[in-house]
Amino acid sequence: MSYSGGQPGGYNPYTPPPGAFPPQNAQVSPQAQQWFNMVDRDRSGKINSNELKAALVNGRGENFSDSACKLMISMFDKDASGTIDIYEFEKLYEYINQWLMVFKTYDRDGSGHIDENELTQAFTQMGFRFTPEFINFLVKKSDPREHKEVSVDQFIVLCVQIQRFTEAFRQRDSQQNGIITIGFEDFLSIAIGCSY
Amino acid sequence: MSYSGGQPGGYNPYTPPPGAFPPQNAQVSPQAQQWFNMVDRDRSGKINSNELKAALVNGRGENFSDSACKLMISMFDKDASGTIDIYEFEKLYEYINQWLMVFKTYDRDGSGHIDENELTQAFTQMGFRFTPEFINFLVKKSDPREHKEVSVDQFIVLCVQIQRFTEAFRQRDSQQNGIITIGFEDFLSIAIGCSY
Ligand SMILES: [Ca+2]
Ligand SMILES: [Ca+2]
Ligand SMILES: [Ca+2]
Ligand SMILES: [Ca+2]
Repeated sequence: MSYSGGQPGGYNPYTPPPGAFPPQNAQVSPQAQQWFNMVDRDRSGKINSNELKAALVNGRGENFSDSACKLMISMFDKDASGTIDIYEFEKLYEYINQWLMVFKTYDRDGSGHIDENELTQAFTQMGFRFTPEFINFLVKKSDPREHKEVSVDQFIVLCVQIQRFTEAFRQRDSQQNGIITIGFEDFLSIAIGCSY
Repeated sequence: MSYSGGQPGGYNPYTPPPGAFPPQNAQVSPQAQQWFNMVDRDRSGKINSNELKAALVNGRGENFSDSACKLMISMFDKDASGTIDIYEFEKLYEYINQWLMVFKTYDRDGSGHIDENELTQAFTQMGFRFTPEFINFLVKKSDPREHKEVSVDQFIVLCVQIQRFTEAFRQRDSQQNGIITIGFEDFLSIAIGCSY
């Protein structure tokens, strides 16, 4: 990875430019109630990750992964009940729609997936400077069978993971030079704490 | 965390004593075929994480978490198909049984869960020296609602995570002093690569 933080016009790799990630405090959407009623299959008034999963389909025609649904539910599930109510759902609904728009922007050929080239461009636009080897690693991790491309649900998981770990790293990188010195227990706390 | 690697009789925190974790290359069990037939509900000849989940119940009477089942399937799923065959299952069957025995050993009061005291003793026996704050953090992470205790499926996930991250840390800790200096991309590789 190379850094461009010190160069004119270069981004600090830790601070994605505005708009690179969807904002987390979005406006309430009028369609949210309608979508909530469709997603809440058992009419419990709450949505769990299985209900969310059943409602979301990626570009491969597969339902979103358990990981992606659990991650997104957990981000809006304030009382850690594993479910979200209509008010939390309104925010999640906007959040997902914004991720879908971000994904479309980076899926340049409109294939419904993001390949290695598109992912490189995506992270560059987000202000990261990753090596080709690291991008390749991310694609392999997201697509363990084909090693080719990243679906929208995998893309969301990947970006949220990178956001979290970058934030944890940045907090410890007092010189902002991309290198930290870290003890075993602190390292474990980040690795375990930021996973979902 | 304190280290005892340099003291007589102390463990290096990175090398759990033999038997602390179940071995990964276990003997074939004669009960495995019978259990396989029960778990393989759709008679596909393969077991996926949902079938495994439906077959495993923890001390709370809940099915094992998606995370735990996916993690365990992925450990034995050589071709990354998301399913395991009977031969892979034989190994998984032994692996799970050994975890159940390990868990029982550490669940001293036989409550079916591991509380903070029991977890402290468990990690001490495994050769780790964690601070009370870190143990508390692990319990909270595993039990986000009650902050009290760890179920067997959460315990497996926790131990596998710690094993993986400890191994990645140890490889970079050339002085074996529990402190490493690490760059941003390498840090991200571990954090993302060792998650499941
Ligand atoms: Ca519901
Ligand atoms: Ca594409
Ligand atoms: Ca099956
Ligand atoms: Ca107990």
